[in-house]
Amino acid sequence: MNETIRHQLDHRTIRFFKDEPVEHATLDSLWAVMNQTATSNGLQLASIIRLTDPTKKQALAKICKQDYVANAPELYVFIADIRRVAQIAYEKGGDLASGESNDLFIKGLTDACLMAQNLTNAVESLGLGAVYLGSILNDPAALIELLQLPPLTMPILGVGFGYADDTPQLKPRMDWQFKMHENVYQDTPSYLEALADYDRVMTDYYDTRDKNQRSDTYTNQVAKQLANPNKLRQRYMQLVEEQGFDLNI
Amino acid sequence: MNETIRHQLDHRTIRFFKDEPVEHATLDSLWAVMNQTATSNGLQLASIIRLTDPTKKQALAKICKQDYVANAPELYVFIADIRRVAQIAYEKGGDLASGESNDLFIKGLTDACLMAQNLTNAVESLGLGAVYLGSILNDPAALIELLQLPPLTMPILGVGFGYADDTPQLKPRMDWQFKMHENVYQDTPSYLEALADYDRVMTDYYDTRDKNQRSDTYTNQVAKQLANPNKLRQRYMQLVEEQGFDLNI
Repeated sequence: MNETIRHQLDHRTIRFFKDEPVEHATLDSLWAVMNQTATSNGLQLASIIRLTDPTKKQALAKICKQDYVANAPELYVFIADIRRVAQIAYEKGGDLASGESNDLFIKGLTDACLMAQNLTNAVESLGLGAVYLGSILNDPAALIELLQLPPLTMPILGVGFGYADDTPQLKPRMDWQFKMHENVYQDTPSYLEALADYDRVMTDYYDTRDKNQRSDTYTNQVAKQLANPNKLRQRYMQLVEEQGFDLNI
Repeated sequence: MNETIRHQLDHRTIRFFKDEPVEHATLDSLWAVMNQTATSNGLQLASIIRLTDPTKKQALAKICKQDYVANAPELYVFIADIRRVAQIAYEKGGDLASGESNDLFIKGLTDACLMAQNLTNAVESLGLGAVYLGSILNDPAALIELLQLPPLTMPILGVGFGYADDTPQLKPRMDWQFKMHENVYQDTPSYLEALADYDRVMTDYYDTRDKNQRSDTYTNQVAKQLANPNKLRQRYMQLVEEQGFDLNI
């Protein structure tokens, strides 16, 4: 095992950071890594919005419903950015509407996620900590307004990072066999039976961790979350259309 | 700069591999890394199909329209897998339809991409090479049939990897400033002007690389790709619906 993999196996969400900026030289390295990330057909369809304005950071924390978000020293929102290539096509004499394709949106979404994970691996390799913020999509319409996202751009996920002031336990995962299929997808007849051992591991994790202890299991968490959807989040694909993408082409 | 970042900055697509399997111990490490990847709300919404059957690998290569795909020693298709959590919710007395939410699909898509990039970083850290296969979505309906993907699962992207038998040049990226915005999205009045230097760098790259030399630029590539969409790829969101997801909830 090498250092990269050691850090990857030790991945945990860091929500609290020291009140210390990340040095310029470090940021330059991290941005270079982000820029070199693999990209669909070489199109380079990801952008980021770096939040430095404390008022904006607090507004984002409000959307996330997580106060700590405002205190992340570095706070990035990853964007599927089809606007750039649509404008290039237009400047070259093409049709601006060629950027409306759902295929391009999916490629942009993919590019944005790959870039976010590439950043996170680099951050963690340096001994810093990071938090993924899926919660930026709690109210996608408010986020689009906050970041002034124009047509053919769409927010995907957030990442906060800095020097860790947090030592959470490692969160266990279900056995890998449930996630890996060979050649074709194979159903599991009963997950409650198959995951009984994992549920016990998770009960122990929730019961003994330092913060936010509770009595819970993985399958309970799943059932609870699926029974209580966030209606604003469910507007996501509608907002993809409002941002100018056409789900039929 | 550390070893992780050095490998990340040296990322290049490896399409050809030595006829040598990846050792079991290495695969175990890589699978453990994939399993530990960050996941939306702890739901663990990504799965993979590992293709080992030569007939299936060739069928995938045909979908990708890239012969070399069949020869990747390890060949994975990443799946947004909402079926697993929907079944868990159902077994716990919930509604199977709660898995149909487009919000869950987007979370699954995100989980799958993060897992793919985490794998790629681990693979490259070991000195092996990897290729992303966005081309698996050239014909998403054929892919769903090939992998026998049931409702509430959807293919996202592919990765092939192994011992590299390929030494491509590093592909230059546009300046990072075009991808990074501060606090709000800012438009660039003319990309043709702004990217003129980058186009010259890319002309040089295309002209002097060892394989597939041609006279081209980044902005030409963008214009050409946007003017020639793949109609089968554009059926993606329609197939998301056919796989049982509801884009309105």
